Amino acid sequence: MAEVLAGKNVVQAQTGEIKTRVEALVARGLTPKLAIVRFGQKPDDLAYERGAKRTCERTGIACETLELPEDATEDGALQAIKRLNDDKSVHGILVMQPLPRQIDATRLRLLIDPAKDIDGMSPLNSARVFEGDPKGVPPCTPTAVMEMIHHYGIELKGKKVVVLGRSLVVGKPAAMLLLGEHATVTICHSRTVDLAGEARQADILVAAIGRARMVTRDFVKPGAIVIDVGINVDPDGKLCGDVDYDSAVENASMITPVPGGVGSVTTIVLAKHVVRAAEASSAPATLS
Amino acid sequence: MAEVLAGKNVVQAQTGEIKTRVEALVARGLTPKLAIVRFGQKPDDLAYERGAKRTCERTGIACETLELPEDATEDGALQAIKRLNDDKSVHGILVMQPLPRQIDATRLRLLIDPAKDIDGMSPLNSARVFEGDPKGVPPCTPTAVMEMIHHYGIELKGKKVVVLGRSLVVGKPAAMLLLGEHATVTICHSRTVDLAGEARQADILVAAIGRARMVTRDFVKPGAIVIDVGINVDPDGKLCGDVDYDSAVENASMITPVPGGVGSVTTIVLAKHVVRAAEASSAPATLS
Repeated sequence: MAEVLAGKNVVQAQTGEIKTRVEALVARGLTPKLAIVRFGQKPDDLAYERGAKRTCERTGIACETLELPEDATEDGALQAIKRLNDDKSVHGILVMQPLPRQIDATRLRLLIDPAKDIDGMSPLNSARVFEGDPKGVPPCTPTAVMEMIHHYGIELKGKKVVVLGRSLVVGKPAAMLLLGEHATVTICHSRTVDLAGEARQADILVAAIGRARMVTRDFVKPGAIVIDVGINVDPDGKLCGDVDYDSAVENASMITPVPGGVGSVTTIVLAKHVVRAAEASSAPATLS
Repeated sequence: MAEVLAGKNVVQAQTGEIKTRVEALVARGLTPKLAIVRFGQKPDDLAYERGAKRTCERTGIACETLELPEDATEDGALQAIKRLNDDKSVHGILVMQPLPRQIDATRLRLLIDPAKDIDGMSPLNSARVFEGDPKGVPPCTPTAVMEMIHHYGIELKGKKVVVLGRSLVVGKPAAMLLLGEHATVTICHSRTVDLAGEARQADILVAAIGRARMVTRDFVKPGAIVIDVGINVDPDGKLCGDVDYDSAVENASMITPVPGGVGSVTTIVLAKHVVRAAEASSAPATLS
C-alpha cells in the first residue's frame, strides 16, 4: 500500500514555524506584508488570492490587493510595481499571472525588486535558481515540491529523479532545486520519445506536464515515489492531476494526491517567502 | 570506425560567415571591438588571450586588453568594467576568470552590461539561457558544443542526451541549450550513483566533469556520439579530455578529440558573440 503524502501535514508544520518567525518580527516592530497585484477579476486569480489571504491571516502576515483594470496600460502597471518597490511597508509582491496581453512580461520582470519578488519572477532570482544560489527565490510551486520531499524525509542524494515537463514555473526550476540536492535529474517533455520508459527509471517521478491523468502505472517503477504537480479539470469538471492516481498508486511506494497534495502547499510557501523577504529587509544590507 | 569531429572544420566554416558579417558592419562605419579584462599575467589567461586575438585578427574584429594588477581593488575593477560599459567603441567585454579573490564576482556580474557580456557572465544572460530565451548569451564553451552538433548535422530532437557535469560554465547551460532543441536531457555529476550506467543510456554523451580520461568505453553505448568538453593535463604533462579517447572510440559512432575538438571552437564563438553584440548595438533599440 502506497503512503499518501498529504499536503496538509506540510502546511500544518510550516504554519507553526512561520507564525513564530512572524511573531519575532512583529516584536521588533516589523509586520511582514504581502502585496498582491491582480488584473481584473479572473475566477482563478480570485481563488488563489483567497487562499493566499487565508494563509496570511493564519500566520500573522498583512496582505493587501492592488486591483488594476484588465485593460491597464503597461505604463500604469509598471508605475504600480514601482510604487510597491518603493513602499517600505511592503516586503513581498505577488503579480498574478498570466499578465494581460498589452503588458510586456520582460519589462515587468526586470522592474520588480528582486528582494520583494516572492514568486521567482525577477530574472535575477531565475539566474540564482539556475545557478544553485540559495539566495535565489524560486517560484512557489517547485518550492512546494521540495517542501513535500523534505517534510516526508525523502532522500535525494544519488537518487534518480525524472521531471516530466520543462516549464519555467515548474519543470526547469524543480530540476535545478533537485540537482542542488544531488539528485541525478532527467528532464522530459512533449518531444521525449519514450516518456513512460524514461519515467519508469525514476526513483522519484515529478509530473508537471499539464495533461490530465497521463501518468499511469506504466510510468511508475515498482516502489517509486510519485509527486503530482498537475492541476487539471477533467471532462466531468472534476479536479485531477497529471497522474492517473488509481493506476499509478498500484506501483508507487509514496504518492501525492490531487487535490490535497503539492497544490495545497503553495500558499504556505508564498507566506514563507514573504517572511524571508521581511527578515532580509531588516538584516544588515549586502549588495549581493 | 568512429567519425572524428574536428573543431577546425567548424572554425573554418564560422570564420567565413563571421568575416562577412564584420565586413557588412565596417561598411556601415562600425568596427566590432572586443575588450579583454585580465588580472595579472596567469599563463592560462595569456594563452586564451592569444587565441582570442588571433581569431579577432582573422575575422576583422578589433581587440584590446585592459590589464589590471592581480591585486587590483574591487572598486578599481568595477570602475574599469563601468568605463567599458560606457565606451561606445566597445561591443563585447570578456573578463578572464577565475577572478582574484578580493573581487566579489556577484558585484562584477551584476555590473557588466548584459548587451556587452559575450561570455554569459551577466545574471540576465544566465536567466535567459535558463529560460530558453534566444536573446540570452550563453558562456562560450557550451555554445561551442552546440556549434559542433549543428556543424556535423547531429539531430537532437527526441534524442537522449546525458551531460556529465553540472557546472555553471558548461554542464548546466549546455543542458538548457540541448533541452531547447528538444533533446531529453539527464544531468549527472559526482554524486550520481552509477555514472557509467547513466552515460550508457545516451545517444549523445557530453563529458564536462573535469576528470582526465574518466569516460571509458563502458560509458558509451555502441553507436553513441561522444562530445568531450574536458581540458586536463595528465600526469605526463600531456593535454587530454574527460574522455579516454582510445577506449571510448571503440564504441562511439562520432567522437570529438582533445585537443582539436570543442576547445578549439571556443574563440570563434567568442568572435561570433562580439559580432552579434555589435549588430544589436546598431539595431533599433528595444528594452527587452
